[in-house]
Amino acid sequence: MDLQAILENIYTQTLATEDKGSVSASIPELRAVDPDKFGIHLLTIDRKDHAIGDSAERFSIQSISKVFTISYAISLLGDEVWSRVGVEPSGNPFNSLVQLEYERGRPRNPFINAGALVVADMLISGLKNPKEQLLEFVRMTSGHDTIGFDERVAASEKETGFRNAALANMLKSYDNLHNDVEEVLDFYFHQCSITMSCKELAYAFFYFANRGYTFDNKVMILTESRNKRLNALMQTCGFYDESGEFAYKVGLPGKSGIGGGIIAIHPGRFSVATWSPGLNEKGNSVRGMKALELLTTETALSIF
Amino acid sequence: MDLQAILENIYTQTLATEDKGSVSASIPELRAVDPDKFGIHLLTIDRKDHAIGDSAERFSIQSISKVFTISYAISLLGDEVWSRVGVEPSGNPFNSLVQLEYERGRPRNPFINAGALVVADMLISGLKNPKEQLLEFVRMTSGHDTIGFDERVAASEKETGFRNAALANMLKSYDNLHNDVEEVLDFYFHQCSITMSCKELAYAFFYFANRGYTFDNKVMILTESRNKRLNALMQTCGFYDESGEFAYKVGLPGKSGIGGGIIAIHPGRFSVATWSPGLNEKGNSVRGMKALELLTTETALSIF
Amino acid sequence: MDLQAILENIYTQTLATEDKGSVSASIPELRAVDPDKFGIHLLTIDRKDHAIGDSAERFSIQSISKVFTISYAISLLGDEVWSRVGVEPSGNPFNSLVQLEYERGRPRNPFINAGALVVADMLISGLKNPKEQLLEFVRMTSGHDTIGFDERVAASEKETGFRNAALANMLKSYDNLHNDVEEVLDFYFHQCSITMSCKELAYAFFYFANRGYTFDNKVMILTESRNKRLNALMQTCGFYDESGEFAYKVGLPGKSGIGGGIIAIHPGRFSVATWSPGLNEKGNSVRGMKALELLTTETALSIF
Amino acid sequence: MDLQAILENIYTQTLATEDKGSVSASIPELRAVDPDKFGIHLLTIDRKDHAIGDSAERFSIQSISKVFTISYAISLLGDEVWSRVGVEPSGNPFNSLVQLEYERGRPRNPFINAGALVVADMLISGLKNPKEQLLEFVRMTSGHDTIGFDERVAASEKETGFRNAALANMLKSYDNLHNDVEEVLDFYFHQCSITMSCKELAYAFFYFANRGYTFDNKVMILTESRNKRLNALMQTCGFYDESGEFAYKVGLPGKSGIGGGIIAIHPGRFSVATWSPGLNEKGNSVRGMKALELLTTETALSIF
Repeated sequence: MDLQAILENIYTQTLATEDKGSVSASIPELRAVDPDKFGIHLLTIDRKDHAIGDSAERFSIQSISKVFTISYAISLLGDEVWSRVGVEPSGNPFNSLVQLEYERGRPRNPFINAGALVVADMLISGLKNPKEQLLEFVRMTSGHDTIGFDERVAASEKETGFRNAALANMLKSYDNLHNDVEEVLDFYFHQCSITMSCKELAYAFFYFANRGYTFDNKVMILTESRNKRLNALMQTCGFYDESGEFAYKVGLPGKSGIGGGIIAIHPGRFSVATWSPGLNEKGNSVRGMKALELLTTETALSIF
Repeated sequence: MDLQAILENIYTQTLATEDKGSVSASIPELRAVDPDKFGIHLLTIDRKDHAIGDSAERFSIQSISKVFTISYAISLLGDEVWSRVGVEPSGNPFNSLVQLEYERGRPRNPFINAGALVVADMLISGLKNPKEQLLEFVRMTSGHDTIGFDERVAASEKETGFRNAALANMLKSYDNLHNDVEEVLDFYFHQCSITMSCKELAYAFFYFANRGYTFDNKVMILTESRNKRLNALMQTCGFYDESGEFAYKVGLPGKSGIGGGIIAIHPGRFSVATWSPGLNEKGNSVRGMKALELLTTETALSIF
Repeated sequence: MDLQAILENIYTQTLATEDKGSVSASIPELRAVDPDKFGIHLLTIDRKDHAIGDSAERFSIQSISKVFTISYAISLLGDEVWSRVGVEPSGNPFNSLVQLEYERGRPRNPFINAGALVVADMLISGLKNPKEQLLEFVRMTSGHDTIGFDERVAASEKETGFRNAALANMLKSYDNLHNDVEEVLDFYFHQCSITMSCKELAYAFFYFANRGYTFDNKVMILTESRNKRLNALMQTCGFYDESGEFAYKVGLPGKSGIGGGIIAIHPGRFSVATWSPGLNEKGNSVRGMKALELLTTETALSIF
Repeated sequence: MDLQAILENIYTQTLATEDKGSVSASIPELRAVDPDKFGIHLLTIDRKDHAIGDSAERFSIQSISKVFTISYAISLLGDEVWSRVGVEPSGNPFNSLVQLEYERGRPRNPFINAGALVVADMLISGLKNPKEQLLEFVRMTSGHDTIGFDERVAASEKETGFRNAALANMLKSYDNLHNDVEEVLDFYFHQCSITMSCKELAYAFFYFANRGYTFDNKVMILTESRNKRLNALMQTCGFYDESGEFAYKVGLPGKSGIGGGIIAIHPGRFSVATWSPGLNEKGNSVRGMKALELLTTETALSIF
């Protein structure tokens, strides 16, 4: 199978579909990004790189960072993390606040914002220099030590992130935040502001394809069992209210962000990252979803 | 790997755990079942049978029947079925009626009751003798032609199924049922009343492990692509509000029923059915969940 | 105060406002009604009639009938009725099914459909010939013995009343209906189909203005205390999700129906009925609301 | 009618009922209040005082302050206030956040916390020294110029008011707060911390009984029409999720606070304030509700 040829074919086909979505309007600093950017980087289990388009350009990873933080929290606290956050899909986005009330402050999973705030709170409690240590974790998993925060994006989100502030205060009212609301929000806005390229993401997420071990096989980020479980969690909860659609059409675990990035994993085979800033109404990259659907259709490499 | 020895080990370990759950009280006719029944049947892709306990005894498959009906509906109507029912997890059971209102009568997936009622309605519209033809479909996929309805269970459910009647009327109010409410409910209560053994279920669901082909390779129930997609749907939506937990702990697509049965699939490897009538509070068999978690832990055969 | 002159003034002013709303589309038989009908009948505590427009023409009273049934149920069962239905406003219509779930099958008040179904169930349990006896009750309170059901409207509602059937089945699933769902719905669709004129309604509701006694002072329908309490209930819950608006702008207890009728009461002063079939989006008669707002503004006769 | 004798009788009867509720635990500083405090002050339209018990002792008026702020906002902005807050009862407290989402950030009425926060925001925008001017307004309406904030209560609420912070951030996310979240919360916690006695409350609310004019007839706080409308609003929305119950049993407009105070109005007749710190599960004073029910039963002075 000539993966490079397949990638090129997918790239061309995806560009040919008319709808490229709309760049997220929710964070002012993100609005300026060029909507025509589009890149893919695929890294196979035998360490072969396949790339096309703007795959080396960094962008705001946004919610993709939630996979780093839950991985890091599990590596620190083990299964204790599940006492404060669940593993069930959340259903409709409309329900986020309802469900938080109904379930008395325990978010349904670590990939909805409420859940990610709780995970951020865990890291703040468990780390000496939480923001710096998170960056080190991401640099280590990806093997790229220049990865950093985009302070302007973090500041922009802080100024407009009233819904996240509402969620954090709700969690605090249920005693499911142990640190100051402001500190948790600051950490959260920073984690979302991390910028990485498709290539760096494919490398950073390689451990999900590699039984928990980093690209160089030197560090076990997660035990094999926990690695499988986080893959399962990405499968069921990784795409907001389109997780079922993604599982149905693509059949791979993954995670998206409103910066237009998507990471997907085929355990034992490859990791792949896409980036195109235009989103559909559910908040997922239109071209990224399309490219990954084509990838699994053409390679028949879904996990099912 | 000596699968028979593993099954025996799992069986013993599962029996040793104290909690065996409670037999469903929702359908009067089901209350009489012996709570100590417990069986497993595993059928590998190379057609080897591994069984233990009460694996040859028939029980009420209940919601497991929803996989048969959506398979059958897709084989008749193709992707048109998705215009009337979605593929997203439903979130909290508490929300079922809310979500049906919020999404204006289009159920989130075919495995929640509202979705199964819509699928039943499709089959009634598309078949001459819907109930008889459904039985023939199940007999054909399983290779056992004595499979039938339990009329007492169907009647019992009819007498107490007011919540299903509420859902059916709601769907009708949104024009998402085309046949009479009574007729749809009658069909639905019958499909749920089908009785099968673990062995028959493992055979019937073999096509999900076998790229869409039945056990004897003679009939293609679903195209390979649709087969994968239904596997993905079982993965994300097969266990009510415990789908995430099942994905997280077991890592296989599957479907449960309140009769205490569970079917799970490892695409390309095996199908496995368990039966133990005691349920947890989410409505899934306690021992069945436990046995399948042990199975994937001990064999490391999760799909992730 | 020349009430007749005031009525005429109000009538003219109301006709001059452009928006007259839209005739309800929910019941096929009601769609044919002439949208330009408009009548008012005001009956003062000293038994003076003031009328204008189509005040003598009968129309479908629909939900106004809910006041008759709860009055009748209280006269039979006393305060026991409140064990099965509450007295709180229901908030948003969107929530009706949610709230029924949240409050485990006890409707918030007798004027939402779920509550009226429970009251209908009480009357069926307590009366030998429920439909006939309800008619007799309405005839007696109004002093008009030709009042009857419109069987075509009742049949039309039965054919399309799936949402009411959903509610009835939900109530049944919570054991808050004691009779057959079909029988309760049949009674309910009949009570809604009663046809009366503005004049007949003003007379029938006179007891709410008259300390519980009928127009001729011969029959006490409700004790003075219960009479006050039902007035309070109409004040807080009589206008679907516009009860607050009506209290705020009109300041009188009352009840509306989707046939376009409204009844309002000034305790100790008068009863008044309006009819104009065009509804606003909340389901209340546009011209009726306007006319009653003008009435209390011009007479300053709000109860507050 | 010897009102003083009636008050004494009511006082004795109320003390004789065993359940006195529980002091609110939600604000730490309020927990220390003596649960046996109980006072009533009734002020008739002809300026006669009737008092009993601890009617001269000041307590935290909490949500009763919401009537002052909406009155003040209307006196500044007129009906423009209703563009940002509604007049409908809110239904279930459980729904508060849901409804705020469903209605896109426009609170249903000014007496739920979300609504009061919006009103606070209006006052901050419209006043030079909002907190000081609010105090002046309350001092003027009550005729007592020593009324002030309890800074310890305000601070205590600030430290624990995460749910209010969540609501304020939600409102901000919908652009329905124009000032800083912190500033709005600070104002809100201060308005709730005002301490007044039953006597001072009865005097301060006298304008609702007196066609909008203060006790000395010198100042018109609200036009007669707006005065009636606010009375109607208190009737339908003044008692959280027990507004219907209060209307049903007492039949007077009013407002309660979790400090244990209740104010009620009989337009054209009297204003009456009660205080007893023990609350029922809906957050209303147990003895206050009981005393007011007895008052209207014994005097038959309900407005209905």
